[in-house]
Order: sequence, then C-alpha cells, then structure tokens
Amino acid sequence: VVIIATTTRFADVAADIEAAVVAGSNVLVSAEECAYPFAIDEELANRLDALAVARDVSICGCGVNPGFVFDALVLTVLGATDSGCEIAVSRTVDLSDFGHSVLRRIGIGLGADQFRAAVQNGDIFGHAGFPQSMHLVAFALGLNIDTIDKQLEPIVADAPVQTRSKFPIACGQSVGVEQIYTAYVNGKAWFRCRFLGHAALNQTKLAALDRIELCREGVLERFVEIRPGINPQMGSQNMIANSIERIIAARSGWVNVASLMPAYPSPTLCG
Amino acid sequence: VVIIATTTRFADVAADIEAAVVAGSNVLVSAEECAYPFAIDEELANRLDALAVARDVSICGCGVNPGFVFDALVLTVLGATDSGCEIAVSRTVDLSDFGHSVLRRIGIGLGADQFRAAVQNGDIFGHAGFPQSMHLVAFALGLNIDTIDKQLEPIVADAPVQTRSKFPIACGQSVGVEQIYTAYVNGKAWFRCRFLGHAALNQTKLAALDRIELCREGVLERFVEIRPGINPQMGSQNMIANSIERIIAARSGWVNVASLMPAYPSPTLCG
Repeated sequence: VVIIATTTRFADVAADIEAAVVAGSNVLVSAEECAYPFAIDEELANRLDALAVARDVSICGCGVNPGFVFDALVLTVLGATDSGCEIAVSRTVDLSDFGHSVLRRIGIGLGADQFRAAVQNGDIFGHAGFPQSMHLVAFALGLNIDTIDKQLEPIVADAPVQTRSKFPIACGQSVGVEQIYTAYVNGKAWFRCRFLGHAALNQTKLAALDRIELCREGVLERFVEIRPGINPQMGSQNMIANSIERIIAARSGWVNVASLMPAYPSPTLCG
Repeated sequence: VVIIATTTRFADVAADIEAAVVAGSNVLVSAEECAYPFAIDEELANRLDALAVARDVSICGCGVNPGFVFDALVLTVLGATDSGCEIAVSRTVDLSDFGHSVLRRIGIGLGADQFRAAVQNGDIFGHAGFPQSMHLVAFALGLNIDTIDKQLEPIVADAPVQTRSKFPIACGQSVGVEQIYTAYVNGKAWFRCRFLGHAALNQTKLAALDRIELCREGVLERFVEIRPGINPQMGSQNMIANSIERIIAARSGWVNVASLMPAYPSPTLCG
C-alpha cells in the first residue's frame, strides 16, 4: 500500500497515484479532491480507475473530511434511519493549535473586505472536500445533484484576540471562517455542509464538535453528535492508517468509502 | 436474498438458513444471536459458513442491535479516533408503544423479587445481542474476551404508572429494565453495553437515545450521541432492507458488519 499525503488537488497527485498503480500498489490518498475525483476530472479519474482495474489494485481517497464526518458516517447512520430525509452536517474546529502559515492561508487575520476579495479571486477557497462528500453520498444513494451553492464568510473579531499560538488578530480582522455549501437535488436543498473554524474557539461559546442532522421537510428528525469533534490532523492520520486493511480487501479500481467496510485498527497490522 | 426475521436464537433459525443457502440464496437474518453465531455454536456456524462458501452465497445477521449501535457504528467511529480506548455504549428505549405480551416477556409489571427470580431461572433474559456485539467488535480488533459480566435489574415504580398502552404497573412493580454487560480483556473492563428500557419513558427525566463513549484509563475522551435513539422496530427493518445490496456484494460465507460496506438505501433497489 502506498500512502500519498501531500496536497489537496487531484491534478497535483495524479502522477504519483499513476506511478504507484503501475508499480502494482494499492493507494490511499489524503488529497481532498480524491475522495470523489470523478466530480473534478472525470476523464483522468476514469483512466486511473481502469489502470487500477487492469493492475488489480485499489485506489481510495480518505481522511476525516472527506472520508468520515460528511460521508462515511452519514451513510452509516442512514442505514438505520428512514430514507428520504434532508441532511445537514456541521463541523466546528478549534484552529488555535494551527501554525501561522496555515491560518494565513485560510484567511485568518484579514479585514472583512480583504477576506471577501480574496475569496472572489480564489486566493482563499476554504475547505476543499465538500463537493466530494456531496457527490459521494449522492452517488451512493442514486441521486443527481443539480447545483452546489457555495458561501465562505469571515468571522470578524470585535476586539483584539490573543490566540494560543500568538497569531495577531486585531479588532475588525477575521478570527475564523464559516463555510456553508448546499447541494440541491430536484430543485430542493438536500445536503448542507458547514465548516466553522475559529482561531480562539475556547474564548467563544462554541465547542469543537461534529453534528449530523437528519431533517424531513425542514423539520429536525434526529441528530448525531460527536463531542469533541474528531481532531483534523490526528483524525485523518487515524483514518488513513486504519484504511490499510480495507484498501487491501477492496475490489480493484478507484473505490470510495461508500463501498468499503468501516476503517478500524486492524489486528493484522497492530497485532 | 432470503430475509429471515422470526426469532432470537441461532438454533431456532439454523434450519431455515441452511435451506435458503442450499437453494442458492444470500441470507439476511434478524435473529440477535446470528450477528456473531460463532460465539454461540461454533461448530454449527462453521458448517453453515462452509456451506455458504461452497454455494457462493453470503449469510449475515444484522439489525439495529446487534448490527448498528453496539458494533457497526462503534467500529466506524473507531476508524477516526485513537486506538486503545475502552468503549461504553448505552441505549435508552421508550417501551410505551410495545404490546402487552412483549412487555410481560421482558419482565415489566413484576415485583422486584419476582423479577430477580425470573432472571435467575432464565425466564427473563433481557436483550440477547450484547455478547454478539462484543465478540464481533473484539474479533474485528483482534482482541480476546476473557469473560462477560452480566447484570439485569428491574427499574421499580415508586407509584402506580399508567402507560400509554394501559399496561397496569402498580407501585413496587417493574416499570423498566436495566441490563449492563461488561466484557473484560486482559483482566480489564474493555466494553460495557447498557440497555435501559422503560414503559413510561416520557414520565421520567430520561430521553430515548443511543450513546457511545470512548474512554482512556476510565476518563471520557469522546462521545457520540444519537437523539432520539434509533427506533427498535423501524431501525431494524431499515437495517435489513438497506443490507440487501451489501449482502449481494459481500464475499461468500458467513459475514458480519465489521467486513461489510455501510448499509444505506440503495439506488439499485429504490431507483
């Protein structure tokens, strides 16, 4: 099994994936876009899928997001619940331990206008995996997504904020980001994904948590909550490590978490 | 696919399973003991497993409990979390819509001494699936269970209770049951399963919910909560219906939810 945990974009890891497949390896990729690459570049994804089938190996993109909170866990819960509901998943993450360069990259410390301009011109794009989770779940359930509405807004500090890592945030600058994507099916909002990241979460009333809501005609029917939410770094490392057994067991080709057994610490590898 | 949803005991459905397998069908069984039949009658389970392999079909026991709350969902969550934790799962169920004969069978309406005597002589045995969930998760993680400690106690009414279905419960009689099983690994409590069923839950401060706790050295590290908890009847029906696709896709033999893709409404069957 080759593990590729380098970057976000399918295009940037495709050559590494191809080299691994040609060498006869199964491949686990942490790149967000690889959770459902057919939504990004169908031709390239189909080519690598066919190559993996020909070499009798499997490729899978997975981590916590995509790979768990917004897709695998959603599908797992749907198995026990009545079908036909709308889905809303919200993930609140404490960014206070993130490095300064990561915080800068996601737009922390900008004025609201600066932030919005950076979103406009594509310098800030938020979390990259929501369309993948949405397409993955839609494909598993046999639904077709019409459109995905995308919003990315700053959470603006109304006083200077001292973050744990001493990242400077002045009054009026962004101390967090709120990203909300909504996928529409048959003209109706079907799946809402929300990411809220905050650089000083413990100074707010918010808590780090993952929450799945199942609604019917807009009314909340049931929710699933994980407290504290899965840690972004450790969670993704765990998901990758715990996917080694299942990528070996998987059918050949480009697979996704909808068709894989659950990830969990394997006795073969840990024992 | 043949669906067998009749009773609880492996011994009571084994002949039906065998007939279906011999006829060349995949089999889904709701019988609690069939979630991990190797823990009940290893010889019989091995024989049916070999028969299913020979006929190239699959057998799986699943429902909500066992099949989801205490095993599949636990394993799914373990994929994203750090390994080596202790597990506690608690399920609180509102029994107020259950029929009188079911309530009588599980021991509602008995005096505390009567209840305990009925537990002693095996007339009341509580939920039958905990050892299956425990063995299933232990096997998946490569652990060996030393012993399972079993407790089943009545919840005694301190005043007469009027249940929704007019089942009569006098002061001093059982209005609910609390069942706690604890599995030990290497001499330490590793997995605790708790079922609390109450015939008038809405007259208490309790809520119908499913809760998974992951602890380390006895300290709560993370919990997953489903509110309201999965409905026992509808949940099991959904799990069985949503397992048709995955039992067809499964490797041949007697499989369990640790090695199956998630259950969810299949486009092939619903579309």
